[in-house]
Amino acid sequence: MSATQVNIAIIGAGGVGKSFLSQLQTLAARRPTPKLNLVYFSTSKKAVYKPDYSPIPFESAIQELGSATSAPLALPKVVEYLAAAPYKTVLVDNTSSQDVADTYPAFLSSGISIVTPNKKAFSGSYKLWQDIFTAASASGAKVYHESSVGAGLPVISTLKDLVDTGDEVTKIEGVFSGTMSFLFNSFAPLEGSGGNWSAEVKKAKELGYTEPDPRDDLNGLDVARKLTILARLAGLPVESPTSFPVQSLIPQALESVASGDEFLQRLPEFDSEMEGTKAAAEKQGKVVRFVGSIDVATKAVKVGLEMFDRSHPIAALKGSDNIISFYTKRYGSNPLIIQGAGAGGDVTAMGVTGDLLKVLSQI
Amino acid sequence: MSATQVNIAIIGAGGVGKSFLSQLQTLAARRPTPKLNLVYFSTSKKAVYKPDYSPIPFESAIQELGSATSAPLALPKVVEYLAAAPYKTVLVDNTSSQDVADTYPAFLSSGISIVTPNKKAFSGSYKLWQDIFTAASASGAKVYHESSVGAGLPVISTLKDLVDTGDEVTKIEGVFSGTMSFLFNSFAPLEGSGGNWSAEVKKAKELGYTEPDPRDDLNGLDVARKLTILARLAGLPVESPTSFPVQSLIPQALESVASGDEFLQRLPEFDSEMEGTKAAAEKQGKVVRFVGSIDVATKAVKVGLEMFDRSHPIAALKGSDNIISFYTKRYGSNPLIIQGAGAGGDVTAMGVTGDLLKVLSQI
Repeated sequence: MSATQVNIAIIGAGGVGKSFLSQLQTLAARRPTPKLNLVYFSTSKKAVYKPDYSPIPFESAIQELGSATSAPLALPKVVEYLAAAPYKTVLVDNTSSQDVADTYPAFLSSGISIVTPNKKAFSGSYKLWQDIFTAASASGAKVYHESSVGAGLPVISTLKDLVDTGDEVTKIEGVFSGTMSFLFNSFAPLEGSGGNWSAEVKKAKELGYTEPDPRDDLNGLDVARKLTILARLAGLPVESPTSFPVQSLIPQALESVASGDEFLQRLPEFDSEMEGTKAAAEKQGKVVRFVGSIDVATKAVKVGLEMFDRSHPIAALKGSDNIISFYTKRYGSNPLIIQGAGAGGDVTAMGVTGDLLKVLSQI
Repeated sequence: MSATQVNIAIIGAGGVGKSFLSQLQTLAARRPTPKLNLVYFSTSKKAVYKPDYSPIPFESAIQELGSATSAPLALPKVVEYLAAAPYKTVLVDNTSSQDVADTYPAFLSSGISIVTPNKKAFSGSYKLWQDIFTAASASGAKVYHESSVGAGLPVISTLKDLVDTGDEVTKIEGVFSGTMSFLFNSFAPLEGSGGNWSAEVKKAKELGYTEPDPRDDLNGLDVARKLTILARLAGLPVESPTSFPVQSLIPQALESVASGDEFLQRLPEFDSEMEGTKAAAEKQGKVVRFVGSIDVATKAVKVGLEMFDRSHPIAALKGSDNIISFYTKRYGSNPLIIQGAGAGGDVTAMGVTGDLLKVLSQI
């Protein structure tokens, strides 16, 4: 049976980190075993931890971190500190930091399990991917990252189950970005005509659906990272998120303007181009959407604009929802589809908490 | 870490049983640890097993069972035989037998884990449900039944994750029967006008989409069983699948006709009634579908015909697919949706194999 006490170390205290901590508190109250000891809690600026590993109470953790004065330990020191702790430890990486991701193999080699929404670890270099899973396999430590694609939607667990039970995944296709989903569901809706492209981008930013600089969504890299993760899980040794075609929606002339604000100000100059794309789709009775797809047989991974029949589930998506379709040998002509909110603190944290429960049942 | 050897006992060798055995063979070949020993394999008529627990080779199991002459052990004897085996044991119940289901508490109390698509165990009396989970909790044995709802679709694992991570499920709604899905997608399609009700039922039977007597699908009990399982997982102590309103599509006059054939022959007499239902929906710009729903707050569980807007995901379902929508506090106005084939030997077995992998990682 499982351990009686388990240490938890959390890096990151943004939106996801705060939601996770709140879920963890509920969890700890409802399930006394194993007892969860928060032994390390840090941001990139500061940290709370005790040399004797005495646990930080969940309910005051945010406050203690807020008033903390110690800088965080250097990452190799975090590995050392946690490896020397009594009981097994789970690291919860609620950052999107490449540095933390690069340290995963060291954590795992020291027997520290990891749960995380951090895409960087699994969509960086293929070598890092291999190092992570080799280290986990050698030490028996677990690593789960459900929320790295589609937030709390059961995307990664489903793909793993398909592969592990011997199904043959032939194609994966979907809308993987809440921002892109919102933009295209508003710009080219099934009912009505939608607004100008630049106006929709502006609105999305005002509603908080984009990164501070909307170009960080429009360049397609976030989707490319998610596709990289899924393609690798499906067995394709994708080298990096820049090793396959990714269509950027940033007009070339605006790639190097200084700020997101200037970008938004000049974007209307390029509305006619997107309007043309929308009209071309409409002419065929279709709608345009920003999707990612993986054709496993031909090893073709790509990200960009595609046209879909109005009756296609991708066309009918609403709000900022994600949709992911798995075409497999067993499922035949109709794919297995998963759909719903793919971004937001609470649902992202839910994927992390669910992963933590999986790890706790195994260590 | 996990066990080095685990015993597998399989009851049932129908479509799901054969698909499962084939998946198990692939699995065992790809993952040498833990070594899986098939120590018992039976139908309701015969069984293969050795007093010394020497394993039956996966590749010849079906053949050995076919030529076996021993009757199966009585169920309490199966418990005794497996409880005395070296290594831990997982029982794979690929039947739909109430007798086997009734024995789950005894298996679990003896430390034998269970994976199964058998709905009877989880949708029978509420007492059996409680006995099963009390026994599992006391002994530490595991029990998984993903394929009892929606076959291999990740329905039960998703609902459990939502509940376990502290989300508040407010409503569950969907099409839970492949047969009903096929019938209504053909009878009241989004495009075109569809056939007569009785003709669609006849066609579904010819295509193998119904039970030998179609009334076993049309009475709604299969859907009621699935709803019972989901409602209980969502926290409602539903007494049985007959303790809430279930609309039967069997005309009263045909409830007691002697055979499924006579039923099919007389069904056209009642076409006008279903035609009226379809027309009433069309008048409102909607389509009619056979759905189940659980309103958690009001504890209302029901199964029957409902009308849906043509743009609703339930209206757009294809073929014999299932669709399940989870409305929760975290997911807000747009539900988390899972969709795809919810019946068939391979996808049902996939749910069982996936469950087995979960158990193996924990014992």
